[in-house]
Amino acid sequence: MSTTDTDTCTLDATMNTIQSNKYNIYFDNSLAELAAFIEQGNYSRFFVLTDENTAKYCLPLLRERLGDPENFDIIEINAGEESKDIDFCIGVWKMLIDFGADRQSLLINLGGGVISDLGGFAASTFKRGIDFVHVPTTLLSQVDASVGGKTGIDIDSIKNIIGTFTQPKAVFIEYEFLKTLPARQILSGTAEMLKHGLICDADYWNLLKQSDLSSTTVEMVYKSVVIKNKVVMEDPHEKNIRKSLNFGHTIGHAVETWSLINDKDSLSHGEAIAIGMICEAYLSYKKTGLSSDELAEITQTLTNLYPRYELKMEHSDTLLEYMLKDKKNQNGKINCTLLSTIGQFAIDNICTNDELLEGLNYYANL
Amino acid sequence: MSTTDTDTCTLDATMNTIQSNKYNIYFDNSLAELAAFIEQGNYSRFFVLTDENTAKYCLPLLRERLGDPENFDIIEINAGEESKDIDFCIGVWKMLIDFGADRQSLLINLGGGVISDLGGFAASTFKRGIDFVHVPTTLLSQVDASVGGKTGIDIDSIKNIIGTFTQPKAVFIEYEFLKTLPARQILSGTAEMLKHGLICDADYWNLLKQSDLSSTTVEMVYKSVVIKNKVVMEDPHEKNIRKSLNFGHTIGHAVETWSLINDKDSLSHGEAIAIGMICEAYLSYKKTGLSSDELAEITQTLTNLYPRYELKMEHSDTLLEYMLKDKKNQNGKINCTLLSTIGQFAIDNICTNDELLEGLNYYANL
Repeated sequence: MSTTDTDTCTLDATMNTIQSNKYNIYFDNSLAELAAFIEQGNYSRFFVLTDENTAKYCLPLLRERLGDPENFDIIEINAGEESKDIDFCIGVWKMLIDFGADRQSLLINLGGGVISDLGGFAASTFKRGIDFVHVPTTLLSQVDASVGGKTGIDIDSIKNIIGTFTQPKAVFIEYEFLKTLPARQILSGTAEMLKHGLICDADYWNLLKQSDLSSTTVEMVYKSVVIKNKVVMEDPHEKNIRKSLNFGHTIGHAVETWSLINDKDSLSHGEAIAIGMICEAYLSYKKTGLSSDELAEITQTLTNLYPRYELKMEHSDTLLEYMLKDKKNQNGKINCTLLSTIGQFAIDNICTNDELLEGLNYYANL
Repeated sequence: MSTTDTDTCTLDATMNTIQSNKYNIYFDNSLAELAAFIEQGNYSRFFVLTDENTAKYCLPLLRERLGDPENFDIIEINAGEESKDIDFCIGVWKMLIDFGADRQSLLINLGGGVISDLGGFAASTFKRGIDFVHVPTTLLSQVDASVGGKTGIDIDSIKNIIGTFTQPKAVFIEYEFLKTLPARQILSGTAEMLKHGLICDADYWNLLKQSDLSSTTVEMVYKSVVIKNKVVMEDPHEKNIRKSLNFGHTIGHAVETWSLINDKDSLSHGEAIAIGMICEAYLSYKKTGLSSDELAEITQTLTNLYPRYELKMEHSDTLLEYMLKDKKNQNGKINCTLLSTIGQFAIDNICTNDELLEGLNYYANL
């Protein structure tokens, strides 16, 4: 996929329902669509997985739009990446058991990426699989986690080390929910949108670069979902072009894991991925043909948007260890997705430890 | 499926490779076939999941036939159903992480049903799925667990409450391994073979009934796998006819769970299923047209083969609780597979608590 493969970036004001892999992604009046989905489905029971934040800020609207149904049981977990640990997943399974969930039950994942990843995994394995839908409430989960059928949980802080490829039955993207989000969470989602531009669509990247990204529009969200959906439809199991979505994530995930374990106020996913994209843009400049001007443009755009993070090189061995555990690796070699130019990804680049250290060093010395 | 749908019971001495759902089940010279599979596959690493029994009695033969390969890591767990608990699954995942397993790794499940269920689940979810093959070493796993693509683990002793439908890449059935088994384990597998006859093939049932089942022949094993494979190929996700395989299992699983928790010397799976089949044959007589002569024939055959178990009716409430958690239920109602006659199953029979108690009582008063 290259820039010439995608449409030029005219944002679509109609925002039709997007067809994905045997399921629909609803944008327009999406909670009414959810009500219709529930009405038409042959489900015995409904469970809403939520965290304390979405229970407070999003669940009331969901209840209201669904006519405050009584046959819903709520499973509430703590907010935050820690809740993706296997122990919390066991907690969700046990609550489903205790509530008497059967194979005709539906799990509604109301929340951000933690809720959709964890809820998707719990549902896809409970009694060998019950149906689930996503109602993503953060920008990050609307443009990323809720689309593509990846589920995942963490063990020992290794992100998504356990998971399945299982499609939701539908995704309901409600722009209204974004209004409840703090600015930092909006920026976390923006990182994935910028990535979509960098890997596939230079026009979209340029548009985002010139926009006030503290107030993302629903049309921008829609465009990002169109790009992500196109990629995952073409390669659902990440055999080739889906790997493009991993740009920034080899180093970004390692930095995120490090921060999760060591920082009191951990980096958000987007903040970590922004760091990863800068480091991997540098590797792209060294290895796959990204120009020095493009490297400077990416670096400047991302450092303007995201706070600086003190990346200490004395911890780089630990970061490399985390990278070595990355799912994308083969034969113990670290496999990165890079860019050949802005709007064009390059997959399957084996990077040596020295190269990765150089990438980290580039960011550390900015 | 009825008796008229299946071949009459002439045991096939040729035992060709059986084609299943995108994978092969090898009978003839199967460990040589495994060696060829490994040789031809593009795998980076190999892991053998085994327990202390198969490590002692089966692993040496496997190593020998594979030419004692060096690039195999062994993951050994304790023998027994307790090892199917989620905690042991986490242990397997952590060992795969520590050994540096990547997405191109192959997991070889060498053992009985616990190994194939647990190993299949661990592999199907590790890094969102790595390849696995089964080398079943017990009669039970050869005729049942290794075929059909069900994986599963237990939580709080609730059997297979968590799992996936994931096909192995191949199954290698080595009759040689059965020679290492104690008589009680052979009889445990025989229960599933008898079930295959009862649900689908009266001729096969008659043949088994008249045979010395302490020395099962390889042709009998082959015939059972043919029957099971035919059922699961037609309905891989248990929407309809695959439910036939649950005959004896609603009550049998509950009795098995009870015994696992309370008895020092727990019932084997087959012993519990034999009890379940007697109780559910009684329900079949009451509800779905099994004749009294057939009920007597099934009862006599199974009580002759399996030791009597003291089923105390004061514990029946606990047994009903276990049955209520059964995956096959809908809307909190207990759903049984019964027989209309020997060789013909009848699915989706809702049984009341009183009926189930009657079934248990029938066995208790034999």
